[in-house]
Amino acid sequence: MGLGLAFWGSKTLLSAVELGVFSELAKGPADAGSLAERFRLHERSARDFFDALVSLGMLKRQGDQYSNTPETDLFLDRAKPSYIGGMLEMANARLYPFWASLTEALRTGQPQNEAKSGGDFFGELYSDQARLKQFMHAMTGISMGSAIAIAQKFPSQKYQTFIDIGAAEGGLPVQVALAHNHLTGGGFDLPVVQPIFEEYVASFNLRDRLRFYPGNFFTDPLPKADVLTMGHILHDWSLEEKKSLLAKVYETLPKGGALIVHEAIIDDERRQNAFGLLMSLNMLIETPGGFDYTGADCCSWMREAGFQETYVEHLAGPDSMVVGIK
Amino acid sequence: MGLGLAFWGSKTLLSAVELGVFSELAKGPADAGSLAERFRLHERSARDFFDALVSLGMLKRQGDQYSNTPETDLFLDRAKPSYIGGMLEMANARLYPFWASLTEALRTGQPQNEAKSGGDFFGELYSDQARLKQFMHAMTGISMGSAIAIAQKFPSQKYQTFIDIGAAEGGLPVQVALAHNHLTGGGFDLPVVQPIFEEYVASFNLRDRLRFYPGNFFTDPLPKADVLTMGHILHDWSLEEKKSLLAKVYETLPKGGALIVHEAIIDDERRQNAFGLLMSLNMLIETPGGFDYTGADCCSWMREAGFQETYVEHLAGPDSMVVGIK
Repeated sequence: MGLGLAFWGSKTLLSAVELGVFSELAKGPADAGSLAERFRLHERSARDFFDALVSLGMLKRQGDQYSNTPETDLFLDRAKPSYIGGMLEMANARLYPFWASLTEALRTGQPQNEAKSGGDFFGELYSDQARLKQFMHAMTGISMGSAIAIAQKFPSQKYQTFIDIGAAEGGLPVQVALAHNHLTGGGFDLPVVQPIFEEYVASFNLRDRLRFYPGNFFTDPLPKADVLTMGHILHDWSLEEKKSLLAKVYETLPKGGALIVHEAIIDDERRQNAFGLLMSLNMLIETPGGFDYTGADCCSWMREAGFQETYVEHLAGPDSMVVGIK
Repeated sequence: MGLGLAFWGSKTLLSAVELGVFSELAKGPADAGSLAERFRLHERSARDFFDALVSLGMLKRQGDQYSNTPETDLFLDRAKPSYIGGMLEMANARLYPFWASLTEALRTGQPQNEAKSGGDFFGELYSDQARLKQFMHAMTGISMGSAIAIAQKFPSQKYQTFIDIGAAEGGLPVQVALAHNHLTGGGFDLPVVQPIFEEYVASFNLRDRLRFYPGNFFTDPLPKADVLTMGHILHDWSLEEKKSLLAKVYETLPKGGALIVHEAIIDDERRQNAFGLLMSLNMLIETPGGFDYTGADCCSWMREAGFQETYVEHLAGPDSMVVGIK
């Protein structure tokens, strides 16, 4: 019953992010009446809403004053660079309603997002530079744990150059470059991403070591480097498309070069990583052929593409990396 | 992020209940291919769906054979009297999509269910005897833990008669009567409920001790008994309506008589019982004026109505009872 009704707590947090509750409380504590006024909430609902957020561990309350927890203040205040609420804003506006059609998705195998009514969310997103920047920044936020773990765990000292394929803002290249001064490289993504990448990289004073490579990973050649990385890329695509991307990376790498694939890699037994399995159902909702996969799946595709050595290593939360050495 | 995306796991379970996965597996284990065929699932989705249910602890898998866990077999197989999936079927068909409008509910204080488009879910439910029976049986299932706890914890040996106000199928009267042989009583509910109540009570051979009292608790007099109970009733109504019901019960009881109010009573600090606070937001979605409340709230309304003594006692899960003695 708790799991079946877990969408209550989930949607309560999503509405709080939508309203900007955590951004407002980052300015200082406030009581329910004052918050109700600022967010134009009905008197019937305000106290239950804020106390529900307290009971869910998302707010604190001292006397009648509500405030952020250290975690919601860091991650859900829009004014902070550590904000990861962009993902939750998208979940609120798009994924929650689309998931209402999960049963139809299970039956038909067809996406249940804007595509169902002829729309194209990502097409529109990429045509609006301001929104794209905000979205990519949200993606940086939710990938930060993995980016830091890759910078620590992958033996970068063996290599000289690395490029992130589908780099978005450049969250991973920046963390790797910060941790390993000898490395140079950059990020490959669609041309529209270039100014967003360059602004982010410049904010870390890394423009002399990290550059942007424009292109489409299906239709253009990939840039050459000792290490290529792909995070949250492969799961968007069908098996055939996944294999074609792996083959292209293999061709591009020098002998001894490495590919790092990272996302919510499912455990080989497909029993433990609920987030990875549910992410795969999210790919069913969002894409025509995408799906998540186990470390063993990915290693076997890498070996089929020609990689000599492969291994899986846990990163952070539900995420792992699969490494292939040419 | 886990809480914000918790609706993924929630909706996955709801779709499994909708499809009847647990009822089918109660007949015996099966592999993904055979289940996909039986439920007409697309080949793209079946394995991820069933493995996600394994990772959520709702199914087991041995080799390639999926089976129910002991809990899902007991509570989510439609063929068993212990089935509580009716509540989850309703959550899937109604509450999940209605909660998409939580932000609007918070802003307007208006219901976001069928009423929004002129519909009347409960009116229609009560006009369809077969559906009403199924629904009331689901309510019996989810109240069973509290019914057993009340039968054990309330000092029924002090009293001779008890009647449940808003009794539905009679789940509470049956448990109390089974535990206390000296008691007689019954259930009060709308006339349409009578055959459903009588059939359920007869199935426990309790028709000589438990009878049905037809009526509307706002417009008709309440039946007289030493103990009156109201479970999951008060939270449906506004403060004024709550107080008017409590006053009516007080008038009806003899001196020394008891009222037991039970549902997801919120802790007095409004910090711990997330389910109770979220249930109150569900009342915002479902009713024009309903809300859940703390034990202290309920005790103060009872004292205002004239009750001499009041106390709160925990029952099971998120539920407690508030007892008032006249």
